[in-house]
Amino acid sequence: MTLTRKSEYRLRRRVQFYEADPAGIVHFSWFFRYMEEAEHALWRDAGLSIAPQDAEIAFPRVSTSFEYHQPLRFEDEFDVHIRIVAMSQKSIRYSCVVSRGDTKIATGALTIVCVRARAGEPMKAVRIPETVTSRLEVATDWTLRPEA
Amino acid sequence: MTLTRKSEYRLRRRVQFYEADPAGIVHFSWFFRYMEEAEHALWRDAGLSIAPQDAEIAFPRVSTSFEYHQPLRFEDEFDVHIRIVAMSQKSIRYSCVVSRGDTKIATGALTIVCVRARAGEPMKAVRIPETVTSRLEVATDWTLRPEA
Amino acid sequence: MTLTRKSEYRLRRRVQFYEADPAGIVHFSWFFRYMEEAEHALWRDAGLSIAPQDAEIAFPRVSTSFEYHQPLRFEDEFDVHIRIVAMSQKSIRYSCVVSRGDTKIATGALTIVCVRARAGEPMKAVRIPETVTSRLEVATDWTLRPEA
Amino acid sequence: MTLTRKSEYRLRRRVQFYEADPAGIVHFSWFFRYMEEAEHALWRDAGLSIAPQDAEIAFPRVSTSFEYHQPLRFEDEFDVHIRIVAMSQKSIRYSCVVSRGDTKIATGALTIVCVRARAGEPMKAVRIPETVTSRLEVATDWTLRPEA
Repeated sequence: MTLTRKSEYRLRRRVQFYEADPAGIVHFSWFFRYMEEAEHALWRDAGLSIAPQDAEIAFPRVSTSFEYHQPLRFEDEFDVHIRIVAMSQKSIRYSCVVSRGDTKIATGALTIVCVRARAGEPMKAVRIPETVTSRLEVATDWTLRPEA
Repeated sequence: MTLTRKSEYRLRRRVQFYEADPAGIVHFSWFFRYMEEAEHALWRDAGLSIAPQDAEIAFPRVSTSFEYHQPLRFEDEFDVHIRIVAMSQKSIRYSCVVSRGDTKIATGALTIVCVRARAGEPMKAVRIPETVTSRLEVATDWTLRPEA
Repeated sequence: MTLTRKSEYRLRRRVQFYEADPAGIVHFSWFFRYMEEAEHALWRDAGLSIAPQDAEIAFPRVSTSFEYHQPLRFEDEFDVHIRIVAMSQKSIRYSCVVSRGDTKIATGALTIVCVRARAGEPMKAVRIPETVTSRLEVATDWTLRPEA
Repeated sequence: MTLTRKSEYRLRRRVQFYEADPAGIVHFSWFFRYMEEAEHALWRDAGLSIAPQDAEIAFPRVSTSFEYHQPLRFEDEFDVHIRIVAMSQKSIRYSCVVSRGDTKIATGALTIVCVRARAGEPMKAVRIPETVTSRLEVATDWTLRPEA
């Protein structure tokens, strides 16, 4: 049996009250959490956990960004669409679009790196294990999509 | 040389934008974080860390509560006054008053227990180490204070 | 047509990475947000929003508590079961049980009050509107449930 | 009397327990909140509030990013140094360096825009009021600084 490699995930989510600020809109810091929720759901969908208990490796974030086009408000339903846009031996890069229906809300990017994480030692970049690379792949057609 | 045992701490804090919700007031969940900030500052003031790296024990929270009297808003300055009101062999109980100037904002309570925390094993309550009990003590006069 | 009044809601949820702390377990402050998520889902299930835009009333929290029995960890699936246990003219009280499968994780309580919320005026408790009271009711049998 | 315009602010901060994740390091989403804390402190230092109650304008974020060089851990003390690097009629751009002692932890960027914020109307970009522009200015020498 061959498992299909996963390259993208679409998460449906609703804005919680504590995520919105006194301006009545979702605080900009939350979009990074939304993007990470979708990333972890993508890994689970591929049969993986990004942080199993007692793992010897970890995947810290090395760079991330968001551009905000429209606000989200309390109880809005929205989608977080994350795709793998690049993979190297030690890192993975994602692109992310947050939308509410046909309205594009925000676009994000995220790069993570695989490190050896031993207590008391500095983090050191290492190769992503084959158990991970065999389940994930770049979304080859992602640039062709309307929302990209 | 004898170190003074610590029994209380007063933390001065300002409301951050992301702590307030669409109603324009600090979200009620934040008061538990304010109380914990003051607790950890009390421990540091006593020469302790509540969670040193690679510690074999931990102090999970077993019960907590807050009553809210007045709201806090963005940029308000306020005080978080935490006091130890009981200590047993394995647990510590705190009382906490949040105030803005002379206005009492909220009153909280928190009980923590000392556990052995080994990876992969269930938590088990153990005696609080003497290194900790020798630095902390119950605030004996706390019931006499005006804000109690 | 008669709408059924709602008295409880069971929310299925998964622990997100950012909700767990360096001890590897969900930070205790998150349970208050879980409880509120379930409360707002209960209101939506009853055809209501607890905070419609430009509302003249609001429902601030006046007291809340949690007792913690077992920890939750990253990626755990769990249920948040909230029930209305008392309603007065101006306030509503909830009870809440968080569980993972058959394991009781935590039990909480929450009391909210209806206030008139006009910009620049102090909050004043007022009667809960009939549009709300006609949709919600006390879960009369809640004390008989095994997890109560 | 002439008020000095402000162009930068250095905020001293300590990592709170709830800001660190199961990997033992500050969750990457928190750096955006640290940057915003420093931004609001810069405005206060200039005699301004970025979100006065009942304001008719607001300053939503339109783009932001962070690059992470080293992790921060529970109880680490660190500095958040924010500087204005560009101002146009309707927007302000900041650069930010987070450091712990001599160690550069992360570098961020943030662009905000001035909008008219009336309930029920879409946000519309407007000129930054003179009350604000008269108090803030670009940090002209910022590219020359060692940490830039």
